[in-house]
Amino acid sequence: MDIAKKGCFITIEGTEGVGKSTNVEFIRQYLSNKGIGLRLTREPGGTPLAEEIRELLLQPRDEKVSDDAEILLVFAARAQHVAQVIKPSLEQGLWVLSDRFTDATFAYQGAGRGISWNRIQQLEQYVLGDLRPDLTVLLDLPVDVGIARAKERGALDRFEQEKHDFFEKVRQGYHHRLRAEPDRFALIDASQSLENVQQQIAAALAEKLDIK
Amino acid sequence: MDIAKKGCFITIEGTEGVGKSTNVEFIRQYLSNKGIGLRLTREPGGTPLAEEIRELLLQPRDEKVSDDAEILLVFAARAQHVAQVIKPSLEQGLWVLSDRFTDATFAYQGAGRGISWNRIQQLEQYVLGDLRPDLTVLLDLPVDVGIARAKERGALDRFEQEKHDFFEKVRQGYHHRLRAEPDRFALIDASQSLENVQQQIAAALAEKLDIK
Ligand SMILES: Nc1ncnc2c1ncn2[C@@H]1O[C@H](COP(=O)(O)OP(=O)(O)OP(=O)(O)O)[C@@H](O)[C@H]1O
Ligand SMILES: Nc1ncnc2c1ncn2[C@@H]1O[C@H](COP(=O)(O)OP(=O)(O)OP(=O)(O)O)[C@@H](O)[C@H]1O
Ligand SMILES: [Mg+2]
Ligand SMILES: [Mg+2]
Repeated sequence: MDIAKKGCFITIEGTEGVGKSTNVEFIRQYLSNKGIGLRLTREPGGTPLAEEIRELLLQPRDEKVSDDAEILLVFAARAQHVAQVIKPSLEQGLWVLSDRFTDATFAYQGAGRGISWNRIQQLEQYVLGDLRPDLTVLLDLPVDVGIARAKERGALDRFEQEKHDFFEKVRQGYHHRLRAEPDRFALIDASQSLENVQQQIAAALAEKLDIK
Repeated sequence: MDIAKKGCFITIEGTEGVGKSTNVEFIRQYLSNKGIGLRLTREPGGTPLAEEIRELLLQPRDEKVSDDAEILLVFAARAQHVAQVIKPSLEQGLWVLSDRFTDATFAYQGAGRGISWNRIQQLEQYVLGDLRPDLTVLLDLPVDVGIARAKERGALDRFEQEKHDFFEKVRQGYHHRLRAEPDRFALIDASQSLENVQQQIAAALAEKLDIK
């Protein structure tokens, strides 16, 4: 991935129901007040084809989905998303905020499913070259609290149908990522009120992005 | 891919309309007469999820599909196909015949789209480990003859909409594969009558597979 990056690439991560989608609009507004134009997007998805791949991934199905097929679908969607949305936006000077990105793959397919980090890194290198997020906002919450919040939204997708244990591993996977690259991450205590969570996010953006 | 292979793995390859799908039933019958049970399958596809991925790949669409997204979808479908169908069948002692397999990726995404063989080999290694076809029947035909044969079947898919030049490169890609591994391939002149083509295929199976 050859990229002449002018904008800043932010991702927001965390287990089910931690408040990722709730807070993207807050971040857009916060940056807009500083005069920064932001492209909001999400994974898996972000383009029509990538959203169709998302459907394949999330649909509950009788057929057992092999770990390799799952992670290759994730990276197929990501390749399309990067080529069509992330790369052109960053090159244009827009900032980009993605609701989930590759850390989610390390957490869900890696820590959750048991695919080795080495195998994930091979695909990361294949698809992204040296493109990486500049800042990752990690919302952290005991998994049961998040699942309880998410459940109120209706029918469960193929990932949401996983058991407590799976999400516990996913949460640990995110913590593992955080320990490996502490400078890239802003760790947010998502168990607090939405107002408090947003204060934490604003403080982290101000500090990490050096915008006042 | 750890595999305790008991059956023989055969693939049939070639550009559009060379007669792959027409001849799989002939091969099944031929092997059945020798007392060999064959599992017929095809790519992209071969399982419900992999067939859904096939649909994503073949559907004509406005959005430009990035080369990386296309090849990752191809290998996602292949990973599922190998895990659910090819590997279990071969381990059970069944023979498997796949209408297209990885040579098609080298020909279409490699020679056709211009993805380097090195990049394709990375994904081949990732998904297949050391699983390779034992025999590949390559039907060879001037591309325009094949396209004319295929056109009679109706609406064109996303690949069939490519221009003459693309398929010329694909055909050369297959020839390149043949030169690299001549022992694995049976080259068939597909411009002959169906009867003659099937005589060639029977002779090649008898010779290459050492069954009389
Ligand atoms: N700080 C908070 N306190 C209480 N409820 C919250 C808080 N933040 C978000 N919620 C609520 O929790 C639910 C899940 O939030 P949201 O959909 O933003 O999570 P998410 O991380 O995007 O989930 P998913 O992983 O499923 O996409 C929503 O109903 C939202 O209103
Ligand atoms: N030797 C032959 N001579 C004349 N016509 C043939 C011959 N073999 C097959 N055909 C006809 O050519 C058409 C294409 O054949 P077929 O669908 O088997 O090709 P294919 O290689 O599977 O194509 P595709 O790449 O599109 O899947 C069919 O109508 C078939 O009946
Ligand atoms: Mg969400
Ligand atoms: Mg066919």
